[in-house]
Amino acid sequence: MAEAPIQRIALVVQYLGTDFCGWQWQPRQRTVQGVMEAVIGEIVGQPVTVHAAGRTDSGVHAAAQVVHFDVASPIPAQRWMSVLNGRLPPDVVVRASVAVPPTWHARFSASWRRYRYTLYTDRCPNLFLRSSVWHYYHQTLDADVMAQALQPLLGHHHLAAFQRSGSSRPHAWVEIQEVYCCRRDTLVEIEVQASGFLYGMMRLLVGLLVQVGAGTYSPAAFTRIWVDQRRDLVKHSAPAQGLCLNSVGYPQSPFDPVLLSQSQPRFWFPPALDGSSNPWTPQSPLP
Amino acid sequence: MAEAPIQRIALVVQYLGTDFCGWQWQPRQRTVQGVMEAVIGEIVGQPVTVHAAGRTDSGVHAAAQVVHFDVASPIPAQRWMSVLNGRLPPDVVVRASVAVPPTWHARFSASWRRYRYTLYTDRCPNLFLRSSVWHYYHQTLDADVMAQALQPLLGHHHLAAFQRSGSSRPHAWVEIQEVYCCRRDTLVEIEVQASGFLYGMMRLLVGLLVQVGAGTYSPAAFTRIWVDQRRDLVKHSAPAQGLCLNSVGYPQSPFDPVLLSQSQPRFWFPPALDGSSNPWTPQSPLP
Repeated sequence: MAEAPIQRIALVVQYLGTDFCGWQWQPRQRTVQGVMEAVIGEIVGQPVTVHAAGRTDSGVHAAAQVVHFDVASPIPAQRWMSVLNGRLPPDVVVRASVAVPPTWHARFSASWRRYRYTLYTDRCPNLFLRSSVWHYYHQTLDADVMAQALQPLLGHHHLAAFQRSGSSRPHAWVEIQEVYCCRRDTLVEIEVQASGFLYGMMRLLVGLLVQVGAGTYSPAAFTRIWVDQRRDLVKHSAPAQGLCLNSVGYPQSPFDPVLLSQSQPRFWFPPALDGSSNPWTPQSPLP
Repeated sequence: MAEAPIQRIALVVQYLGTDFCGWQWQPRQRTVQGVMEAVIGEIVGQPVTVHAAGRTDSGVHAAAQVVHFDVASPIPAQRWMSVLNGRLPPDVVVRASVAVPPTWHARFSASWRRYRYTLYTDRCPNLFLRSSVWHYYHQTLDADVMAQALQPLLGHHHLAAFQRSGSSRPHAWVEIQEVYCCRRDTLVEIEVQASGFLYGMMRLLVGLLVQVGAGTYSPAAFTRIWVDQRRDLVKHSAPAQGLCLNSVGYPQSPFDPVLLSQSQPRFWFPPALDGSSNPWTPQSPLP
């Protein structure tokens, strides 16, 4: 049988970060890259490198990570989804697979990444949320003030204040394209879309932002800190389990955009139903 | 020290059913009752019986189960919540604890139980939902027709068609107080509030109801089946992980009603944000 030509396969991948030491391969650690490369390598019978759009940290989830790899295999591109889902462990799932041109790159072709951070502010713990929120209940958070503090981040900025040490990145310039912070009852959600994210950026940003929500810093003081690159004042990193890589954008996306944007469910506690009310209509005033 | 007087303590308890063989104590099985009785018994130094409002089945979750027990202990009623949360395993949490009169009974004082069943109808699997939905994608479900089929269930009925064998209950009369079925994008939710539930009732009911949604039975045929007590035609039980004990009602509830009704989050996939749209406002027409 003639050898199959080399194909570049792109996937949309979802994973629960809880039991992974992040995306990137590390010796003797369970990582998503390590698991995927082992499974694909076993199918094709030779080592394979899997490239991801965003290298999520230990404990961070991904609702729609995008990856690619090159293989010489007779398996059609569309079939890789079910082939892999039959072999991947229960905390990783492939939601789409397509063939892409050899010049297309999951990381370098991406024009943005979007992360969502979710906080749960009720005093009571809630088991149904625990693995995907930061249970923040010791202080009241004003989401409007937090949203206000995010606004000046829009644009092209040097964000060394939100960069963890140990990064190999040569500079800390980032283009922030969208910011969003909203409370709904006991849940507060923060979303940031940027050209790229620095090492630890989203969790350091959220760690400082809750201090604005709690009244420790004003929005102006928050802005001063990152404009002045005061990394020393950014002391707290928000816990990993509240963070999720929400989606990745490409100038010409090889995937259905709905698949990328509708992968991560939001949580919602609507008021009790009495038969007459529609649970999907928010009853309280919108922020 | 004088012995503390006997107090009846009532709790709101949440648990993930995944790793439990249901609520009720069974020899050599991990059950919620078994775990709770062991923990409380160890604290007070003598055997304790814990009574629950609803005896959930193996694999079924509870967002707001209500239980009670009697103890002679100096621990104040309000403190039992934190005392137990420090000792219970990670898949059980107490969300409230109060003292109740010795005549109050978690099971016999309850006037209703409410269960919610969640179906996820997208073709792609979704890791963030997997432990709490039935992934139903091989047939299209018409939630409006399902809602229509539920309506005749309102009232006092003999529902032997929805009773699993092995029940110790002397009769199959149930008063259904509220029914609800609604689709939102890829999610379909079914809620039933009743005076009580027969053994396996909710899962048998949902197992037949999806056959109405898929067009196998008309709403009239569905009604005919339970009116005629055709248990032989109710062949499929919906999987346990989609089911959750949502709340329990009492004529005079010892708990904050918000705590009971706002314990189970709904999932929601709102459209992608573009900065201008509010993610909490449904964009598509409401059912």
